[in-house]
Amino acid sequence: MPKINLAAIQQTNRTGYPVPFAAAVYGRWVRKLGPDSGLADFGVSHVVLKPGAASSQRHWHEDEDEFVVVLSGQAVLVEDDGRVAMQPGDMAAFPKGEPNGHHLVNESDGDCELLAFGRVPTGDAHYPDIDLRWSRGGYQRKDGSAF
Amino acid sequence: MPKINLAAIQQTNRTGYPVPFAAAVYGRWVRKLGPDSGLADFGVSHVVLKPGAASSQRHWHEDEDEFVVVLSGQAVLVEDDGRVAMQPGDMAAFPKGEPNGHHLVNESDGDCELLAFGRVPTGDAHYPDIDLRWSRGGYQRKDGSAF
Repeated sequence: MPKINLAAIQQTNRTGYPVPFAAAVYGRWVRKLGPDSGLADFGVSHVVLKPGAASSQRHWHEDEDEFVVVLSGQAVLVEDDGRVAMQPGDMAAFPKGEPNGHHLVNESDGDCELLAFGRVPTGDAHYPDIDLRWSRGGYQRKDGSAF
Repeated sequence: MPKINLAAIQQTNRTGYPVPFAAAVYGRWVRKLGPDSGLADFGVSHVVLKPGAASSQRHWHEDEDEFVVVLSGQAVLVEDDGRVAMQPGDMAAFPKGEPNGHHLVNESDGDCELLAFGRVPTGDAHYPDIDLRWSRGGYQRKDGSAF
C-alpha cells in the first residue's frame, strides 16, 4: 500500500550533534519515510517540532538540496536575511552551495509538523552561528579539532 | 529568499498526453518549484487538482521514485489494490520499478492542493488502464506505434 502509515514508522529525537549543540533539537521528533517506503532517489523526513525546538542548528550544505513544507502548526524560518513566519502550506527551498544558513524554530506553544526533503550529503556543511562544521563524514570544531 | 512565493511561479495545465488521454488532466494546474528555487537533486511540483481532475493517467515508472503529500482538499488515491481517501497531511510513496499503477483523482467539489516529488525519468513508464506507454523519451501506443 503506497499510502504512508505514520504510526507504523519509528520516531526518534536522536541527534549526532555534539554537546552543547544537541539541546536545540531534543524536541525534534523525526520519522524517516524513505526506508520503509522503498524510496532511494531522495530522502523524506516527517518532523514534529515540539515548542522551542529547532529543525537543526542553522546550517547550509555544499552538496545537498533541501526543501521543507509545513503541514501543521507554526514555525519561524531563520536565515541570513532575517526571520519569516511559516504557516501550514508554506514551503522553502535551500539549494546546495548557497551560503545562507537556515533552520526552522518552533516559537509557538503547539507542535509544528513539517516534511523535509534532501539527499545524503557527502560534502561539508557549515554552521555560521556556532563553532561546528560537518566535514569528512563527521562533526568537528571549525579549526578541525575533534569534540 | 528561500521561502517559496507561489504567486510568482507560472502555473500551467499543459500536458504531453496524446488525445484522448489528455482530458483527464486539463484540470491539473502545475507549478514547478525547482527551477526558480535552484533545486537540482529532485523535482518539486505544486499541483492544484480542480474538481474531476486527475494527477495523471494511472501509471508507474521503471526508474523514478515519486512521493506525494496532500496540502488541502480531498483526493482519492487509485492503485492496483483499490482506492484510498487522501486528506490534508496524507502522504504516499511510489518507489521506482514497483508495477503498481497509481494516480490521485479529485472527486470532491473543491480544489485539492498537493506536492509531488520525483526526478526526471529516463526509463519507461507504464499505463495499465489505457493503450499508452512512455518509452525512448516519448509516448507511443503499447504496440510501439506513434500517435
